[in-house]
Amino acid sequence: MTTPRTGFIGLGIMGGPMACNLRKAGYTVTGYSRSGVPAACREAGVVAAESPAAVAAASEVVILMVPDTPDVDKVLFGANGVIEGVRPGTVVVNMSSISPSAEPANAARLAEKGAEYLDAPVSGGDVGAIAGTLSIMAGGKPEVFDAVRPVLASMGKTLSHIGPHGTGQTCKLANNMVGAMTLMAVAEALTFASKAGADPVRVREALLGGFAQSRILDIHGNRMIERDFAPGFKIELMQKDLNNALQNARAMGMAIPGTATAQQLFSVAVGLGGGQWDHAGIARAVEAMASHAIGEA
Amino acid sequence: MTTPRTGFIGLGIMGGPMACNLRKAGYTVTGYSRSGVPAACREAGVVAAESPAAVAAASEVVILMVPDTPDVDKVLFGANGVIEGVRPGTVVVNMSSISPSAEPANAARLAEKGAEYLDAPVSGGDVGAIAGTLSIMAGGKPEVFDAVRPVLASMGKTLSHIGPHGTGQTCKLANNMVGAMTLMAVAEALTFASKAGADPVRVREALLGGFAQSRILDIHGNRMIERDFAPGFKIELMQKDLNNALQNARAMGMAIPGTATAQQLFSVAVGLGGGQWDHAGIARAVEAMASHAIGEA
Repeated sequence: MTTPRTGFIGLGIMGGPMACNLRKAGYTVTGYSRSGVPAACREAGVVAAESPAAVAAASEVVILMVPDTPDVDKVLFGANGVIEGVRPGTVVVNMSSISPSAEPANAARLAEKGAEYLDAPVSGGDVGAIAGTLSIMAGGKPEVFDAVRPVLASMGKTLSHIGPHGTGQTCKLANNMVGAMTLMAVAEALTFASKAGADPVRVREALLGGFAQSRILDIHGNRMIERDFAPGFKIELMQKDLNNALQNARAMGMAIPGTATAQQLFSVAVGLGGGQWDHAGIARAVEAMASHAIGEA
Repeated sequence: MTTPRTGFIGLGIMGGPMACNLRKAGYTVTGYSRSGVPAACREAGVVAAESPAAVAAASEVVILMVPDTPDVDKVLFGANGVIEGVRPGTVVVNMSSISPSAEPANAARLAEKGAEYLDAPVSGGDVGAIAGTLSIMAGGKPEVFDAVRPVLASMGKTLSHIGPHGTGQTCKLANNMVGAMTLMAVAEALTFASKAGADPVRVREALLGGFAQSRILDIHGNRMIERDFAPGFKIELMQKDLNNALQNARAMGMAIPGTATAQQLFSVAVGLGGGQWDHAGIARAVEAMASHAIGEA
């Protein structure tokens, strides 16, 4: 595939800068977003289309970046959806974070039109989207992944092919399960230590030197100590991913009690009014249950 | 304190090599252990004493490395205990991992004899004990910590003063709370991903590149994939520390639901016969609940 024409559906906080990075890398981009193509994208040369179908008709690689499973379904298969415009050989890359279980069926329906499909959700947030340093975790045929690798490389730094359709989404959920539980671990440990009279700054430093080391202890442990809960990655988005994980685990017939506990602690944070806090705000849930804030005398 | 005479009580898997490292650093060591001074310690020049009291009478720094809270109580205050031999100005350093709440009283009883006290538990396991690279987390007076710093430096690499009496133990519990929950996180995420058809090797690699990175994902995630559950740090020892954390949290009036969930998963592993497995064996508990082993086709 030599320099394919690309299309982008969903030009929000994540999709907008990703589409701009495609332009910077020299790709043509036809764009569609519910609320219109934003000014920054138009200035970068993204050409507006009328509908997802129109984007698909104009493109050889069609990228989706929309909020959740029903949005992907609507954009692909709803009125004027991608499926109405897509041509044989086109690759549809869903970079939205949705339920893994939906992806094999999405791939199969597009395959009826001769189109290829990848699930390729990202981590790295709006900062990574702007910088073009996202981690991209892809599921689907390896040869399709290889074909669109240069396109993905203009938006991300770490590109991983994980396995068949849906496993990109599975990997993203695994990523956020680990993230959520590590946040819970750091929040409980720092609150426990602080309430017992230990200096949380020194505890964090001591733990970073040993087997409890993690990027989250480093960055978000510091946020909890500094009382910085401005997003970042919002609790309500973490909740979406954890709910997807719990739903898929239930469907597979397995228990994930640690994930369920973390989900409940995030729900405590939401109950405290924290849906829009950064996910480090899980500390406030633990603190509320302890009547003690980290670092309080 | 210029090159103090040291004493060592508890010469087991941890204490034995730690006492040898004191000898290598040039300290005299008077030793006592329930089952006698082991050959390796005698060969290194550790002099056997009859009792904890005799060790204390011969030493200016007395180090304890025994299994749990009741053992420390017995060695300090039981028949022929440290308190019967200790002299004013001697520093007793409890490097055993015990309940934080016991430590202020231990310090107070020794202070009646004019002796100083530190709680200074370690992480790093028998490997760190042998190599002299332990992490040492100390609670007590800062000037006492500074006075024995050279002695501690012959056994450990990272020396942290955390706060008043008991906070060394608190920091150690915080360390193991984070460790236990991160192990739970990695076990659930890899089992979930593997059961959903993703390659756990690629999932681990993708996650190491992002915000889910941790030393445990790196080392113990690999152990889970390689099916290596030989100890290492045994599940039954992790259980002891988690039980101490839960007990102290209850006494302080705070909930640590993530820690409690991890403790339950380790109990599942013990129920499966895994008390002697390495703590990475928590994966087998998660796998049992999923009827799926990580990496199984």
